[in-house]
Amino acid sequence: MTDEHLYSLNSKKVEAATDEWLAKRGVTREAIAELVFFLQKDYYPDLSVEECLGSVNAVLSKREVQNAVLTGIQLDVLAEEGKLISPLQEMIYNDEGLYGCDEILAFSIINVYGSIGFTNFGYIDKVKPGILEKLNDRTDKEIHTFLDDIVGAVAASAASRIAHRKQAERESNMNAPID
Amino acid sequence: MTDEHLYSLNSKKVEAATDEWLAKRGVTREAIAELVFFLQKDYYPDLSVEECLGSVNAVLSKREVQNAVLTGIQLDVLAEEGKLISPLQEMIYNDEGLYGCDEILAFSIINVYGSIGFTNFGYIDKVKPGILEKLNDRTDKEIHTFLDDIVGAVAASAASRIAHRKQAERESNMNAPID
Amino acid sequence: MTDEHLYSLNSKKVEAATDEWLAKRGVTREAIAELVFFLQKDYYPDLSVEECLGSVNAVLSKREVQNAVLTGIQLDVLAEEGKLISPLQEMIYNDEGLYGCDEILAFSIINVYGSIGFTNFGYIDKVKPGILEKLNDRTDKEIHTFLDDIVGAVAASAASRIAHRKQAERESNMNAPID
Amino acid sequence: MTDEHLYSLNSKKVEAATDEWLAKRGVTREAIAELVFFLQKDYYPDLSVEECLGSVNAVLSKREVQNAVLTGIQLDVLAEEGKLISPLQEMIYNDEGLYGCDEILAFSIINVYGSIGFTNFGYIDKVKPGILEKLNDRTDKEIHTFLDDIVGAVAASAASRIAHRKQAERESNMNAPID
Repeated sequence: MTDEHLYSLNSKKVEAATDEWLAKRGVTREAIAELVFFLQKDYYPDLSVEECLGSVNAVLSKREVQNAVLTGIQLDVLAEEGKLISPLQEMIYNDEGLYGCDEILAFSIINVYGSIGFTNFGYIDKVKPGILEKLNDRTDKEIHTFLDDIVGAVAASAASRIAHRKQAERESNMNAPID
Repeated sequence: MTDEHLYSLNSKKVEAATDEWLAKRGVTREAIAELVFFLQKDYYPDLSVEECLGSVNAVLSKREVQNAVLTGIQLDVLAEEGKLISPLQEMIYNDEGLYGCDEILAFSIINVYGSIGFTNFGYIDKVKPGILEKLNDRTDKEIHTFLDDIVGAVAASAASRIAHRKQAERESNMNAPID
Repeated sequence: MTDEHLYSLNSKKVEAATDEWLAKRGVTREAIAELVFFLQKDYYPDLSVEECLGSVNAVLSKREVQNAVLTGIQLDVLAEEGKLISPLQEMIYNDEGLYGCDEILAFSIINVYGSIGFTNFGYIDKVKPGILEKLNDRTDKEIHTFLDDIVGAVAASAASRIAHRKQAERESNMNAPID
Repeated sequence: MTDEHLYSLNSKKVEAATDEWLAKRGVTREAIAELVFFLQKDYYPDLSVEECLGSVNAVLSKREVQNAVLTGIQLDVLAEEGKLISPLQEMIYNDEGLYGCDEILAFSIINVYGSIGFTNFGYIDKVKPGILEKLNDRTDKEIHTFLDDIVGAVAASAASRIAHRKQAERESNMNAPID
């Protein structure tokens, strides 16, 4: 039980738990960076996976993102263990199409880097490249109803961040005059 | 454990569980209707609590709303029992100000009746009338980090629905000519 | 100039203007229904374009949707006529990738039928079938920066509505017992 | 008319236009900082208006925010000049309660600093302190249907940013051990 009188938010613990749980659930930052590269390579021929990884790291350092990652993984894990109340248990366990709270948490991640990430999110959620295919494979008994949307959202946000930064680079190279 | 091969969504069970869990957590539909009345009585002098209740019922019949109610109450209950992973446990148990997933689920409820409900949500979340004050009282050891936002969102949505319907009534009385 | 003292919202005018402006901008309800069919035909083999059209009509009857359609088309038309303030003019005229207000209006449409529509929106926004390809063709001098996202959002919402109704049909056929 | 072949986004122009148009419409950064101070002073007794101003500046430096400011002011100005299509003209001119695109643009601003800003937005939108009261005063013939929501959203975002930074300061003072 938690003693609320001694409670004080510890941001380092939130960040460390985010990392720990992503790893436990089989998601590396590199795998997310590969999704970003998949989304952006056609627009920026000089883009490297390393640059994508830097962007993933920046997204994962945001508090809102960490909160959504932890909350989503928590619900996945509890569904896997059969510990949720019915019929929430059945809906999350079976990734019910009419249950949309997983998408809702995902959008809270995308919003942090602005609306331009939504298209990319919808696209990789449909074609499911790389780690997203693995997360959607039900043969391994793991439940990733929330995590697949969250990983897609982190990738889409990181792609938006790259779009913003590439523009800044381009303007900086031109010394972007005001007129 | 759930057998996914036999899974088939049962909407009546989702609706019944929503009712059951709201009641278990001390929230009646009448208490939500009182919030709606509080929000709208100054705009519609002839408004009754019964009409507000009808609007609350309509909002609670929506699948998206039921999903958010069940998911939020589930997280509250688990936090109350100390069963969440750390530091998610501490953040939800203490209604951490920088944890915003409760607001996020609440917005998914408001969105169903359109953006005009956001102002009402923010307002009652701040002044906390009626049942919202009770849900925020920590002396009874119950955790309602998600539920207070969800109840506020249901009330705000029901208020939006009333605004839409009152307009329809007004136009119907005028036989609303196109020009 | 408008005389605010005589102002009274006329919902029939809002609905009629929505229809009129969609038509003026080259978008028929049938063309949107084709997008819905494209999105849902693999999931429901017995789906007809007529059923999709019924769903498009239901989405377009919502006030929030009509508001977004009119606002978006208005901004497109003004950009086409070169009448916006700079640099808003240039950003909308050129469908600037870092300008996201078009996506934002689109999401307000999707939200009305719940978060499950976001994936479909992102997908058709990327592959651009049917009318979406035409709206993105810059050779005809028309600007559809907002309208292409709005049309995609209406289609995605109509697809969500179909998913909800097909589930209701399925359960009704089974007499959906509570246990 | 714009020549799209020569188009290249100039971020400095977007930022300069945001400043210029806020000023033209009677909104100073100081007036927004006063709203932030109003929202946060009870939580942080040592908070200064200067600190609030720094936070307002940070929010206004975000591209998504600048886009929403310019788009909203553009629609206000056109409504003031009577240049919008009917009935969009009448709805924006009269700040129609069932027209919610102003709130929608406002939320895209709040989202950038996370969901915790929504409550503050709803609250100041209802009590309308300081500059918000002035923007809602219809006697001066100016239309601020979008701008009042946008200013409230910038203030709410700046308040969220302060909440995040105050927490970082607190933890830094404690050397926040991981455990």
